[in-house]
Amino acid sequence: MKKQVYLDYSATTPVKDAVLKKMLPYFTQSFGNPSSLYTIGQESKQAIEEAREQVAALIGANPKEIFFTSSGTEADNWAVIEAAEANVKKGKHVITTAIEHHALLHSGAYLEKKGFQVTYLGVDSEGMIRLEELENAITEGTTLISVMFANNEIGAIQPVKEIAEIAKRHKILFHTDAVQALGNVPIDVRELGVDLLSVSGHKIYGPKGIGALFVRKGVVLPSHLHGGAQENKKRAGTENLPGIVGFGAAAELARTGIGEHISRVSGLRDYFLEQVEARIQDIRINGSRERRLPGNANITFEFIEGEALLLLLDLDGIAVSTGSACSSASLTPSHVLTALGIPAEMIHGSLRFTVGDFTTKEDLDYTVECLVKNVEKLRGISSVSKEKGW
Amino acid sequence: MKKQVYLDYSATTPVKDAVLKKMLPYFTQSFGNPSSLYTIGQESKQAIEEAREQVAALIGANPKEIFFTSSGTEADNWAVIEAAEANVKKGKHVITTAIEHHALLHSGAYLEKKGFQVTYLGVDSEGMIRLEELENAITEGTTLISVMFANNEIGAIQPVKEIAEIAKRHKILFHTDAVQALGNVPIDVRELGVDLLSVSGHKIYGPKGIGALFVRKGVVLPSHLHGGAQENKKRAGTENLPGIVGFGAAAELARTGIGEHISRVSGLRDYFLEQVEARIQDIRINGSRERRLPGNANITFEFIEGEALLLLLDLDGIAVSTGSACSSASLTPSHVLTALGIPAEMIHGSLRFTVGDFTTKEDLDYTVECLVKNVEKLRGISSVSKEKGW
Repeated sequence: MKKQVYLDYSATTPVKDAVLKKMLPYFTQSFGNPSSLYTIGQESKQAIEEAREQVAALIGANPKEIFFTSSGTEADNWAVIEAAEANVKKGKHVITTAIEHHALLHSGAYLEKKGFQVTYLGVDSEGMIRLEELENAITEGTTLISVMFANNEIGAIQPVKEIAEIAKRHKILFHTDAVQALGNVPIDVRELGVDLLSVSGHKIYGPKGIGALFVRKGVVLPSHLHGGAQENKKRAGTENLPGIVGFGAAAELARTGIGEHISRVSGLRDYFLEQVEARIQDIRINGSRERRLPGNANITFEFIEGEALLLLLDLDGIAVSTGSACSSASLTPSHVLTALGIPAEMIHGSLRFTVGDFTTKEDLDYTVECLVKNVEKLRGISSVSKEKGW
Repeated sequence: MKKQVYLDYSATTPVKDAVLKKMLPYFTQSFGNPSSLYTIGQESKQAIEEAREQVAALIGANPKEIFFTSSGTEADNWAVIEAAEANVKKGKHVITTAIEHHALLHSGAYLEKKGFQVTYLGVDSEGMIRLEELENAITEGTTLISVMFANNEIGAIQPVKEIAEIAKRHKILFHTDAVQALGNVPIDVRELGVDLLSVSGHKIYGPKGIGALFVRKGVVLPSHLHGGAQENKKRAGTENLPGIVGFGAAAELARTGIGEHISRVSGLRDYFLEQVEARIQDIRINGSRERRLPGNANITFEFIEGEALLLLLDLDGIAVSTGSACSSASLTPSHVLTALGIPAEMIHGSLRFTVGDFTTKEDLDYTVECLVKNVEKLRGISSVSKEKGW
């Protein structure tokens, strides 16, 4: 059988066996509707509340501040659109960044269509926003700042606490998309002072189809989905019971194992980068070396097309990404790398490698060998094309 | 072990073993992000497209007309809110009914807050809307009619085809919430002529956390969740891969088994009703005897509180409902039974029993025995209370 190496943990993660095991009874046995009054309904309700505690514990929140959604995207949409619309009397200005996930950027575009003004902050060459630029962007009518905790493409970790302080000083709500940060960076919503924070299950070895929004006690946020009285009347729809249980179990594993996870995964990532730097010429590591998600490596291979390299690696059984999965089928160059000031031709030669809990040193050695081989092959074609004037 | 009888299939259903078996590989093995370009991502994409075909086949749709959501509630919100908002230039009037699920009623309330006018059609004593009342409610500014296919509390099946004809004649969009009808009534969207139709996985022995919206080709419906390019750019968020696969598998089982399902389940329901009528005095069957979901029985037991009866039955291991699960914790009398003209004191004595694929004749015999015993007990207390003037 062909060797399979998965290096796209930022796109999604497999569900851990222990997580799936916790979920299984809730499909076929303990399947009661959590809103039902009888015993098997109330047992489902209890399982959901336990999961709520587990997710809350991972970010230092009160369980009552956790509202389950169907995805990080839904949490982002809910937070940004409803927070903006709930505060129109104060103003119609929202500040976010140019390197957000599309869930944020497209929610911003939706708000602009509805007559809101949205400022997209730029970033420096390492993907960091500038706090003075944020401060200068604030106007009388600013009601919401949304800055992602850690970037999905280059892994840059923003100064969330400092942003929260600025927001608080100006009495502006602060939302952060922590989908990539969860489980990879210690998060304490109290210490950080954030008002709204989005997370997702399938990035931390939990199932797809489940996310959550942290809403700090006292923050007024109208519902985004209307209907039944689920989630304390805040988010309607029969609860994704096994999904919630799985998210809870994954959060519990992430919380207890975060220290080991970070040191192991960042160690592997550093090893990988060293090998790539030692073995391949004309490459560039994108993003900050320090303030970066432990598993993330974003590398430009000059003179080649990233997509061609991705497909050759796929033939070798290696899964990597040219950017975020959500826009991977698009031909427009990554908006994140563009915001870092990287020239378009270099963006096209960029790949994202993300290391996770099931990655081994052998996986990375194999990947480096395949990279050396395939980069050489593609650069050969590329130089031939240049000589022939193709 | 205590006997367990589940008679709340309209609240939710257990996932069938064959369905769970199809889902399992997608949690831990074939977990690739469907938006990813490499092999395991594309395999996920393929699994989703197969499920889309299976769901489409169950309702006679083209797979391209099926968009997966996180629930029936989300599908309802999307259809009604976005269809109304997309057509504001034509008008701001929406027609629905007084017996809709809260996902519809609360979406209606949201639209009213946004300046729309919403007409809630009444129903006759069997829960049927009157077509002439619908026709009379239509104004120049009506842009959307939303009438549920089959009611969740009393099982009443509306004249969907006739409603669609009226809507078409007036060039008005027609949405139907078919969450309860799916798998229980043959549905062919082409023959019926509906424009938008909501369905859900967990009512047909598929998983919770997955639904779909049918959007007829040619109908313009903006996105409700903004972000990545999933679902043909119509519904953002990483796809709930195992959920979608499970919904597909459940749809396939529902389609191939629908004839047997309907005859078996309606046979059991009729048997149950006969026994209850023969054994218990002063009861009333709510809703139509004919145009009714196969598994639904809604019964008023006079002189008692439905909730007390529900709890006594729960002690006997029997799960039934006082109304829809989504509002079961509420003390307000069922809006559906109220719309049928049933007096409040009789509504409070009403229970919903819904029979499903795992129900046996023995389950129903046991339930009838427990009903006889518990109704007698409660009526005893009730007459004592009356005598003592409590």
